[in-house]
Amino acid sequence: MTVTGVGRPRLSTRRRPGATAREEILDAAAELFTTRGFTGTSTRMIADAVGIRQASMYHHFATKDDILATLLLGTVAGPVERAEQIRLNCEDPIVRMYALALFDTSQLAAARWNLGALYLLPEVSTERFADFRRLRNELMVRYSSFALDALRANGGSDCGPGTPELPFRLVEAMIGARSDANSRARTFVLTPHTIAAASLRTLGWSGPTESIAHSAVALLDRLAESHPQPSP
Amino acid sequence: MTVTGVGRPRLSTRRRPGATAREEILDAAAELFTTRGFTGTSTRMIADAVGIRQASMYHHFATKDDILATLLLGTVAGPVERAEQIRLNCEDPIVRMYALALFDTSQLAAARWNLGALYLLPEVSTERFADFRRLRNELMVRYSSFALDALRANGGSDCGPGTPELPFRLVEAMIGARSDANSRARTFVLTPHTIAAASLRTLGWSGPTESIAHSAVALLDRLAESHPQPSP
Repeated sequence: MTVTGVGRPRLSTRRRPGATAREEILDAAAELFTTRGFTGTSTRMIADAVGIRQASMYHHFATKDDILATLLLGTVAGPVERAEQIRLNCEDPIVRMYALALFDTSQLAAARWNLGALYLLPEVSTERFADFRRLRNELMVRYSSFALDALRANGGSDCGPGTPELPFRLVEAMIGARSDANSRARTFVLTPHTIAAASLRTLGWSGPTESIAHSAVALLDRLAESHPQPSP
Repeated sequence: MTVTGVGRPRLSTRRRPGATAREEILDAAAELFTTRGFTGTSTRMIADAVGIRQASMYHHFATKDDILATLLLGTVAGPVERAEQIRLNCEDPIVRMYALALFDTSQLAAARWNLGALYLLPEVSTERFADFRRLRNELMVRYSSFALDALRANGGSDCGPGTPELPFRLVEAMIGARSDANSRARTFVLTPHTIAAASLRTLGWSGPTESIAHSAVALLDRLAESHPQPSP
């Protein structure tokens, strides 16, 4: 058994994915928050799920709110960074929009836990989560800016008030689709490519999307190589 | 003061909108659940907010779960009914799709409390809420059926796996938009017409939407007159 980070030795062998105790705590909390609810989860339950003492957990996170804040920030930090890299490395507004929607939807679909389901918690509107709301807002602004450029490129601007907000909303629809699949309300068929293509169509794009998809995937592959994602 | 329904006389005069004590309880619970969270709300708090004794509340609802189940059912019962009336009273698949999205988005935008924010609660995936999940699934099936007809009418079917699910997801995006507006993350600019028009575009519609919007509004007005909505 390897002991990583600060705190006392672990009570048992590693139970969770994650290279460090901190990552294991985040993984356990993400599971409990999304399956039992945030209010319904105690720090004790998180420590038990990791197999560490509560006191050890406090070396990493002072409160349950801190854990939630870290998890929520982790869901938007990657896309904000990728959006900036996409902007710097691609000049086609249609490919840009597709690439951002594809990247973001893919990570929402592939993440171990459906953390976006926590965005609507009343707690998240409190001061403690202002950092998260600021970063998510930055992501929304980047989406809107890409969307406006794509709208202009499509020669359409009369799609109704709020149209530049639609791609961001469609991408976050992945959260509801996953949640319905978890509760067996619905088979999970919506793919990141379907959502990325639909984002373009909400902005007036009516042509085929195969070659755009191809360029976007190539761009994301290049970016993934030159700028690997940091861990939460 | 009029005392309606069963239970003891009210402690005070009416504080809440609603013709009956039952409706006042539902309104108070909707406010508390959406602003303090479901787990963070006790039946005592709901009774206090209405100005009745807890014992009186139990004449109307045996548990907090029963209140939530009634509220959630209320968010989908109207649209399911309207979808059936739209199907029986309109044969144009494009107008049908627009009308359902417009009706449903309008009620999500106009409801006093943003109850859709509670759909992702882990509690809602338990057996107690099977009725709600069944009815919401029926609504999804109706959306998909309208969407498939609209896709066929648009001559397009290669929009990617899950495409018929997109209008339903776009409509539910109104929930996130309202929640962001409440927490001041974003001004609330997205309109029901923008979402209804975007729903059509995700299904391959690339023409103008003015005359469709006009027909859909006329249809909904006729239906509202012939089939007024029941209260929850």
